[in-house]
Amino acid sequence: MTASVHPFPARRAPSLDPLMSLVATDLNHVNSVILERMQSEVPLIPELAGHLIASGGKRMRPMLTLAAARLLDYAGARHHKLAACVEFIHTATLLHDDVVDGSGLRRGRRTANIIWGNPASVLVGDFLFARSFELMVEDGSLRVLRILSNASATIAEGEVNQLTAQRQVEISEDRYLDIISAKTAALFAAATRIAAVVAEREEAVETALESYGRYLGIAFQLVDDAIDYSSDETTMGKDQGDDFRDGKVTLPVILAYARGSDADRRFWRQAMSGERAGDADLAHAFGLLKSTEAIADTLDRARHYGQRAIDALGSFAPSAARAAMVETAEFAVARAY
Amino acid sequence: MTASVHPFPARRAPSLDPLMSLVATDLNHVNSVILERMQSEVPLIPELAGHLIASGGKRMRPMLTLAAARLLDYAGARHHKLAACVEFIHTATLLHDDVVDGSGLRRGRRTANIIWGNPASVLVGDFLFARSFELMVEDGSLRVLRILSNASATIAEGEVNQLTAQRQVEISEDRYLDIISAKTAALFAAATRIAAVVAEREEAVETALESYGRYLGIAFQLVDDAIDYSSDETTMGKDQGDDFRDGKVTLPVILAYARGSDADRRFWRQAMSGERAGDADLAHAFGLLKSTEAIADTLDRARHYGQRAIDALGSFAPSAARAAMVETAEFAVARAY
Repeated sequence: MTASVHPFPARRAPSLDPLMSLVATDLNHVNSVILERMQSEVPLIPELAGHLIASGGKRMRPMLTLAAARLLDYAGARHHKLAACVEFIHTATLLHDDVVDGSGLRRGRRTANIIWGNPASVLVGDFLFARSFELMVEDGSLRVLRILSNASATIAEGEVNQLTAQRQVEISEDRYLDIISAKTAALFAAATRIAAVVAEREEAVETALESYGRYLGIAFQLVDDAIDYSSDETTMGKDQGDDFRDGKVTLPVILAYARGSDADRRFWRQAMSGERAGDADLAHAFGLLKSTEAIADTLDRARHYGQRAIDALGSFAPSAARAAMVETAEFAVARAY
Repeated sequence: MTASVHPFPARRAPSLDPLMSLVATDLNHVNSVILERMQSEVPLIPELAGHLIASGGKRMRPMLTLAAARLLDYAGARHHKLAACVEFIHTATLLHDDVVDGSGLRRGRRTANIIWGNPASVLVGDFLFARSFELMVEDGSLRVLRILSNASATIAEGEVNQLTAQRQVEISEDRYLDIISAKTAALFAAATRIAAVVAEREEAVETALESYGRYLGIAFQLVDDAIDYSSDETTMGKDQGDDFRDGKVTLPVILAYARGSDADRRFWRQAMSGERAGDADLAHAFGLLKSTEAIADTLDRARHYGQRAIDALGSFAPSAARAAMVETAEFAVARAY
């Protein structure tokens, strides 16, 4: 016994460290599958895919598949290939998103569409998507194939839904939640759910993990939306106010619009239709977001979904895996504070 | 007995009529599946997809699935859903192709990317592709899933390969055949092959039908390449010389280049790099294609593959289905004469 006692140590800020430690070995296997299976006799394919895949993404979704498999004490190796499938689908959607949004920067690097052009980004995205299904077929589970093909269709529907809502500042919070549930949360939900399939667990386990992934995905997206109005390029790898300049209506804007005066609403309508994209306009937007507490309440909504993600894990016995998944949800909502 | 005798009636020109008659009833079922399953709660999806799907395409690939199933006396209904899958994959690749090529006209109508923009075309293509896999999962055959996921990856590889070969007039005939085998013939081959799977026939039958589809697809593509240098908008639904103006190196150009003088080669290099895209340049190209017999020999190559498609059916007993499939191959190469 030492003389120094720390009865109430300050709890460290939530981080992804427990998740990353938990799955580190498995993730190496996943990365091997990814590198091996993104190859092609057509050199541009691994070149372009590798640019994004090796660009320092966290591999969030495959890590969640691996963590959920660990939670269920799964002892096999099928989840390595399937986690790679999830990452391929994610990469394909990022490649297409950057074309759709005309993005030039992601994670602080020039996007593939800027370097190799839109056509190559579209086609390599198609390749990765098809390759993902080839890998699923190799695994051989129709149940996994159903979950990931449903998720893929849902993602595309969500993206089209977002496209048609673009610049429409009057969309409801409900419609916005529908959009992000589809375009973002569906793949998180599928990533965690397939772990229950490979571990051959009952429907209730599948449903619990599906809920965890879905709520976590919504929380991540809402915090991303808030961060877009507070980050600078060094912390986010994208420019502050990107969503604002692109006329992308996210929850902070929906709340600020709903709570604003007639003059405020006129401003938001003009801003989202692209008529107010200057630095002074962005500064004015910051002021409105602050006075309406739109950012703070977006983060409150995110906390709500983060808590629901944590509660979805309530039926699982305490374990390092559960603790890591809980802290991941805490991290999702804490990183903006 | 009548007085008029016609001992040697002139054989009518080969047509798609026997194929269309053979599968007409089945095709109605396929069209129902297509219309039902391209629906979505996001209205832009059926609107945009319907524009292309209802635009008077022949449904060539699904018709081939249906004809091959008839050839094998398949009595079930699984092929209706799977033929719709094939058409969805085809439609998805057309939507993405038009974005990649910057096309404005297909089958005589404005393309979806012109009407709704590139982003919507990319995303609705993604949706149809994912929906296609959902339908395959409903059917439940891992073997079909493998054939169509392999074909999808091969198509994307072929498209990327073609992109990297764009404007490179010195590519070999072999590489060009690799490209069209992947981007065009792979889906024809998969379309006919899956009929053997649903009919639960042995490997040799699968292989024979795969060969028929592959060679037929190559023949169709080569004739399309030739027609691009001879059609006008009313017959093809695309502008004469589109490939020329886009710097798309097809077999006629490869042959004319290989057989040309130094001056001719200089012309082709300049033309394919976009420096000679005027009407006078196109007229000069026609002259070179004629003097080198490049069009005639492209059609000769097409005839070769058409004959191989027909020979691939040699092991099947004579039937209305076989006759229709033979005449389809004859039509593929005869339509340009």
